[in-house]
Amino acid sequence: MSSAAHRSEHDLLGHRDVPADAYWGIHSLRARENFPITGTPISTYPHLIEALAAVKEAAALANQELGLLEPEKAAAIVEACREIRDGKLHEQFVVDVIQGGAGTSTNMNANEVVANRALELLGHAKGEYQHLHPNEDVNLGQSTNDVYPTAVKIATVFAVRGLLQAMAVLQDAFAAKAVEFRDVLKMGRTQLQDAVPMTLGQEFSAFAVMLEEDRSRLAEAVELIHEINLGATAIGTGLNAPAGYAESARRHLADITGLPLVTAANLVEATQDCGAFVQMSGVLKRIAVKLSKSCNDLRLLSSGPRAGLGEINLPPVQAGSSIMPGKVNPVIPEVVNQVAFEVIGNDVTITMAAEAGQLQLNAFEPVILHSLSESITHLERACRTLAERCVAGITANEDQLRAAVENSIGLVTALNPYIGYEAATEIAKEALAEGRGVAELVLEKGLLPAERLQALLRPEVLAGNGSPRI
Amino acid sequence: MSSAAHRSEHDLLGHRDVPADAYWGIHSLRARENFPITGTPISTYPHLIEALAAVKEAAALANQELGLLEPEKAAAIVEACREIRDGKLHEQFVVDVIQGGAGTSTNMNANEVVANRALELLGHAKGEYQHLHPNEDVNLGQSTNDVYPTAVKIATVFAVRGLLQAMAVLQDAFAAKAVEFRDVLKMGRTQLQDAVPMTLGQEFSAFAVMLEEDRSRLAEAVELIHEINLGATAIGTGLNAPAGYAESARRHLADITGLPLVTAANLVEATQDCGAFVQMSGVLKRIAVKLSKSCNDLRLLSSGPRAGLGEINLPPVQAGSSIMPGKVNPVIPEVVNQVAFEVIGNDVTITMAAEAGQLQLNAFEPVILHSLSESITHLERACRTLAERCVAGITANEDQLRAAVENSIGLVTALNPYIGYEAATEIAKEALAEGRGVAELVLEKGLLPAERLQALLRPEVLAGNGSPRI
Amino acid sequence: MSSAAHRSEHDLLGHRDVPADAYWGIHSLRARENFPITGTPISTYPHLIEALAAVKEAAALANQELGLLEPEKAAAIVEACREIRDGKLHEQFVVDVIQGGAGTSTNMNANEVVANRALELLGHAKGEYQHLHPNEDVNLGQSTNDVYPTAVKIATVFAVRGLLQAMAVLQDAFAAKAVEFRDVLKMGRTQLQDAVPMTLGQEFSAFAVMLEEDRSRLAEAVELIHEINLGATAIGTGLNAPAGYAESARRHLADITGLPLVTAANLVEATQDCGAFVQMSGVLKRIAVKLSKSCNDLRLLSSGPRAGLGEINLPPVQAGSSIMPGKVNPVIPEVVNQVAFEVIGNDVTITMAAEAGQLQLNAFEPVILHSLSESITHLERACRTLAERCVAGITANEDQLRAAVENSIGLVTALNPYIGYEAATEIAKEALAEGRGVAELVLEKGLLPAERLQALLRPEVLAGNGSPRI
Amino acid sequence: MSSAAHRSEHDLLGHRDVPADAYWGIHSLRARENFPITGTPISTYPHLIEALAAVKEAAALANQELGLLEPEKAAAIVEACREIRDGKLHEQFVVDVIQGGAGTSTNMNANEVVANRALELLGHAKGEYQHLHPNEDVNLGQSTNDVYPTAVKIATVFAVRGLLQAMAVLQDAFAAKAVEFRDVLKMGRTQLQDAVPMTLGQEFSAFAVMLEEDRSRLAEAVELIHEINLGATAIGTGLNAPAGYAESARRHLADITGLPLVTAANLVEATQDCGAFVQMSGVLKRIAVKLSKSCNDLRLLSSGPRAGLGEINLPPVQAGSSIMPGKVNPVIPEVVNQVAFEVIGNDVTITMAAEAGQLQLNAFEPVILHSLSESITHLERACRTLAERCVAGITANEDQLRAAVENSIGLVTALNPYIGYEAATEIAKEALAEGRGVAELVLEKGLLPAERLQALLRPEVLAGNGSPRI
Repeated sequence: MSSAAHRSEHDLLGHRDVPADAYWGIHSLRARENFPITGTPISTYPHLIEALAAVKEAAALANQELGLLEPEKAAAIVEACREIRDGKLHEQFVVDVIQGGAGTSTNMNANEVVANRALELLGHAKGEYQHLHPNEDVNLGQSTNDVYPTAVKIATVFAVRGLLQAMAVLQDAFAAKAVEFRDVLKMGRTQLQDAVPMTLGQEFSAFAVMLEEDRSRLAEAVELIHEINLGATAIGTGLNAPAGYAESARRHLADITGLPLVTAANLVEATQDCGAFVQMSGVLKRIAVKLSKSCNDLRLLSSGPRAGLGEINLPPVQAGSSIMPGKVNPVIPEVVNQVAFEVIGNDVTITMAAEAGQLQLNAFEPVILHSLSESITHLERACRTLAERCVAGITANEDQLRAAVENSIGLVTALNPYIGYEAATEIAKEALAEGRGVAELVLEKGLLPAERLQALLRPEVLAGNGSPRI
Repeated sequence: MSSAAHRSEHDLLGHRDVPADAYWGIHSLRARENFPITGTPISTYPHLIEALAAVKEAAALANQELGLLEPEKAAAIVEACREIRDGKLHEQFVVDVIQGGAGTSTNMNANEVVANRALELLGHAKGEYQHLHPNEDVNLGQSTNDVYPTAVKIATVFAVRGLLQAMAVLQDAFAAKAVEFRDVLKMGRTQLQDAVPMTLGQEFSAFAVMLEEDRSRLAEAVELIHEINLGATAIGTGLNAPAGYAESARRHLADITGLPLVTAANLVEATQDCGAFVQMSGVLKRIAVKLSKSCNDLRLLSSGPRAGLGEINLPPVQAGSSIMPGKVNPVIPEVVNQVAFEVIGNDVTITMAAEAGQLQLNAFEPVILHSLSESITHLERACRTLAERCVAGITANEDQLRAAVENSIGLVTALNPYIGYEAATEIAKEALAEGRGVAELVLEKGLLPAERLQALLRPEVLAGNGSPRI
Repeated sequence: MSSAAHRSEHDLLGHRDVPADAYWGIHSLRARENFPITGTPISTYPHLIEALAAVKEAAALANQELGLLEPEKAAAIVEACREIRDGKLHEQFVVDVIQGGAGTSTNMNANEVVANRALELLGHAKGEYQHLHPNEDVNLGQSTNDVYPTAVKIATVFAVRGLLQAMAVLQDAFAAKAVEFRDVLKMGRTQLQDAVPMTLGQEFSAFAVMLEEDRSRLAEAVELIHEINLGATAIGTGLNAPAGYAESARRHLADITGLPLVTAANLVEATQDCGAFVQMSGVLKRIAVKLSKSCNDLRLLSSGPRAGLGEINLPPVQAGSSIMPGKVNPVIPEVVNQVAFEVIGNDVTITMAAEAGQLQLNAFEPVILHSLSESITHLERACRTLAERCVAGITANEDQLRAAVENSIGLVTALNPYIGYEAATEIAKEALAEGRGVAELVLEKGLLPAERLQALLRPEVLAGNGSPRI
Repeated sequence: MSSAAHRSEHDLLGHRDVPADAYWGIHSLRARENFPITGTPISTYPHLIEALAAVKEAAALANQELGLLEPEKAAAIVEACREIRDGKLHEQFVVDVIQGGAGTSTNMNANEVVANRALELLGHAKGEYQHLHPNEDVNLGQSTNDVYPTAVKIATVFAVRGLLQAMAVLQDAFAAKAVEFRDVLKMGRTQLQDAVPMTLGQEFSAFAVMLEEDRSRLAEAVELIHEINLGATAIGTGLNAPAGYAESARRHLADITGLPLVTAANLVEATQDCGAFVQMSGVLKRIAVKLSKSCNDLRLLSSGPRAGLGEINLPPVQAGSSIMPGKVNPVIPEVVNQVAFEVIGNDVTITMAAEAGQLQLNAFEPVILHSLSESITHLERACRTLAERCVAGITANEDQLRAAVENSIGLVTALNPYIGYEAATEIAKEALAEGRGVAELVLEKGLLPAERLQALLRPEVLAGNGSPRI
């Protein structure tokens, strides 16, 4: 029995009271009790909530079009979905992000919120499902098994947009520095050992180009996400979805979201397959790997201030130590490294969840959604933070950089074609052993005339331009 | 300049306004701005906040004992810390769980909250650091690099206690079922193929024993966490920590926490080493692997209701499908599987973060703390949920189980010692090909007299002694 | 001093004897001593050896074209490379697959073998480098840092071809079974619980489609591998590679290999970036995930013979047990599962190695090559084995499958649109509780007339066709 | 029909010819055909072959003791096993290391080799199994499911011994350097930024202590491996193993191997559980993480020779570049890093394989064995190589190290207790901005008298001793 503050609902297992003002119902209630895992409700992912509403709206329009849903009901459902897509009622999406049941609880939560809001719009009280039912009307022609993956895909597309933009911001920041530092000579290094000269601009240009390539890969991976299985219903056979439904729902969903959605050719396969998510996570991991590498480099190049490489200076953003006065640490690259490690770990989680799918369905999509969303969101924030709080303010210690080039043994590499690898090796050994310069030794041994030597060793020439001399 | 609603604080980088009522100060403010990554503040981990307060309290007592801190200041700091350990002011711990800087921001946040609360207790306004200073008094003799790992370890010990208890609850639930099902005969399976008979009690007993062993391993791993580096200060050389400080602080911290803490023999090593966290995560992964395996088994054994193995029934806890009426799914084991995948992914994150430490410090401990805390907390909740919402209510389909044994070809294995592997193989092949029973074929071929055969094939005998017959 | 059985060579570190008949020289000798790790020489990867020879040949042709290498030397180098590409002298590639030095030892090994073979072709003895030198002639205009990644990419392209073919063979095997089983009705399952009917053909079709999609992804990933950095020399600045060299070398290499190779636009970036390998490994992991899932399904569907699902029969390929007579196990899917786990582990290795690159180079490419080659080769063998020794011989237990459908509660789902989700739920509950059939209960309750019911429940209709009913 | 060069054998599936001189038989033959995956036979792991022989020997002795096996047969089996344990016939162990079937093929291979050698010893021809049968005699009372895990455990114990020794060698090498460098002052660094002074000896001591701790963990993990399930037979119920067999076999096996083996209390659990392998792999991963971190440090500290930190010199072991004369790279640490990445990847493989176990058995133990063996063996070789070819020859650039300390801003930390964190911060800022020294600024501002300052800043004092000043 429910008091005034509650209403009674029932399901397969019996009756339960839910708060009278809750838009969610008995299915959400049970799910909250069953999955007290993270304490994080699905409302944490607004893109997912919006995507669920978009799917419900598209399904209602398709059902109306096919004559399966009365226009009044359809209109109320559509209106409720639009409110949700406008950001309302998100706090009613209360089930845990990690849940059993292949997303059923998320879908049920959406059905209940939409139904109760639609009931209100129709002038009924919440819970009066005889007028409009979460399963029979809102979920009409649908199954969790097509609704949930479709919504997760749309949410992912939305989220990736933000990441792509943040990556572009970071790429631009690196590219601006590449221009700024285009004439700053420095020693290039391989295996942490002094190699041959280059410019600091070339170094930052590489960071920018990596991001550009990663953006291309991400854009490709997100294309694969546009293939949906709406209309598959339970296992891809389309049971209970009438002829024309899948196409109509897809069309409406494409209109609502503005996305070029495609219905999978083989819905049985599409319903059980998590390949597109694994691929997406693999690309996110690739991005993480290269972001982390770039941050490692930034931290290394800015090591010091006196006992490190000291090539560049990262802008100070906070005091670095509670005990060492004046210490400033590369905290922004460090936080990006940690996000990268998280993304790489999430990829393993997603891999295991995908591998664990059985027969006609993968029951573990909720943790895939959770991990994927976390990876995308954190990478986006990491890219923006890195661009704005670090890269934009980087300065170079030009004098120190040039001195290192002039003092370097690596210059001898440029003489290879003129004095040979073996003679050059002898020069290098002697320079190192005696702490002398390459040029003076070459002259001393009469291997090249002074003028020729000077011309060959002009570092500006040696640095090349990072493009093949075609 | 600050308005009435704000106070002005300054650091290495300049002045900033902080809200007048905030116990945190300028360092926390900058950290919040610098690390907008997860949106999850460190207060999410109450054990960590309590552990930080315990460390600050122990340090104040040690400093007072050594005559470095005036008794009034010490008393105020101690009082502030006790309030925090009692659960107060946790909402003032505002920095993001994923942060650059090796935990400096977390330590600074703690210093500021303790200092400002202590100032109030001394009758001063927040921010009047001339009377009691976050760094010079609260952090006296300390560095983030010894405070933070020490606090993380204590927090981990506290968190693991909860996990150990939850695992015991789950172990008991499995053990109770092992007793309940001790006489339920069934076919054992290897490689998913029918093997030889056993009891369902033996099967559940194995689940219980796995947990018991895992608890032993976890208890061992948590022992390693009791070794702390308090007194190491910045890099383990103990700079600025006077003689006697490390031992006094350890003693007070052991008193406060009730833990048998030990100071590491080599503090330089202890300050940079994350081995104990990697070990702990490795054990959590082991637990996850076996929990996941057990849940896979529960889902498999309860598959059906009609086209599956149908050996056991999991208690229904929610409707299973938005489209398939009456369908009930194994949602509790499924959510546990997902937690296991998350823990395994977190282990990779922790591994990478640990490997990325450089020279005298690992800057990536915040993501180690975050991942470790998440793994421990989620595993604890998963174990309790599995015990209470699934295992406790499992029932067996005894008739079906016994019929499968009696109908099985695997019985022939028991005749090996009497008719030989080769003859037994022939019987098995024939039984399978012709859909007949093992016993009738043995009799038909006159391989054994009927009475002898009957005695040998008593399934109760076959189920054997390979486990305690409870 | 060298005896008759040896010749003396020298390098930066001094003189050493090498066997007189060895085509490899002092650099290979030192590398063998320095890296006694796996015991597996690089000759294990013939595609790599051929690719190295192709690069050396292309470089020699480019150098001759640019007037940097005398035609006689170039001709001898080219001839030596062609012999190697024809499969000769592979046993001379002796350095360990896991080696320090970013592939330097592999490149040096190639330089030495090519030089010594070319010397022989020119009528000189091995080791008479004054006539043709491993570094000054064979390696002219090159660096390990452009040669090695270029060779690894070409080797990977060759290896992936084999994998694509094996995947096609497996896809065809699944597709043939999809046709064979197109009319075999069975229960579909979600979350291991009985769901709604489908055909076994649809199930196998999904396996085939997964492979088709994976092949597309793999073909895309291999495209990225065609971008090379030859001409970059040490760090991408092209030092010591004259104008025109990169383009000429690329053109010759494309001719030799028949591959549409492209020189990277930014060679500094291309020289340090392992993104294409990470991407490739990510796609291999995706393939592994889905292969493993498919094998899990095959093992589950063939579980039994009597106490399992028993839906299909895998062809027996060996006796399954040393103790259980007549037992046959799904050993082929099991071995494929294990290859999948290996590939997923290798992906983590590759990820860590890629992340560990520093500044202008990734020193850890050897383990990337090793892991990638292993993943590709083992997946190829696993696909062929699975196709030929398992899938091709699968048979279906049709009667049992159809009986399960007719007996199933899941049929009630089809009545949803006609009797409603709530009434259908009641039917399902009652059927389960009382062990009765859905149809009889619907009739008993007068929910639908018999004829209508029969029409709705025709399983052939219910199974749909796995495509949207557009 | 078999020619003279072959003999005919038969199994469940029919007859096949095997080479007349092969000690392996039809089961091995089929396995080779079924698993053409890695091309690596199990003989690659001699410890495994020896362990298999030890198990077979112990079982024969137990069977004889219990009156189940005639003394002549037992004696022949024992003699054959001893030959194998002495290193003979290893080349007859031909099945692939990655195989389906839970190790059945490995066990069958062992049964066949032992049987055929025993037949010879008894004066029979190979293949005359009527006199002594691989399954009925050699495998008597056994199952792959107890033999294989038992043998894998014993092999692992043997292999770990070698690793423990290699780790001790490396630890000693680091410890010797710690003594050698105990008075070499240098700047400690946190987050790659200059921190406070320490000695190079302290730095190397930390490397040594890490290894010492890891050795303790490894020794603990290997203890767990001494628990075996011999006597469990197929699923742990001990079917076909008579009373007393398990204990007798364990006793003999302990005698033969010299190991304190224990029979698991719950054999059903022990037969399906891979926890001890997961734990072992987790500890190997921990070792890998810290070895990799140490190698990262060695590479960083030796960066240069002129544009890097240049604190230490690694001994040159080979020429570093095919293009850059005189370049020497840190190739030994680099190869160790790669082994570490491999071990970490293997841990994921092992984790997935362990998680995939189902019901009464884990079918994926072969890949666990393979990955574990590879990790242990490669780590052993990596440790020895690192000790002998790198650490033993490291030298320090003492003057440069001391100059960095004297020039450092980090010295100001030591003044904290005397001039306060805020004043010290101002000094640090000014020193950095103006390129001046800490001491001169303190004097200039009159913060401390010269004599006091000099006493406080004596670096020898600052470096402390890395132990708490208790």
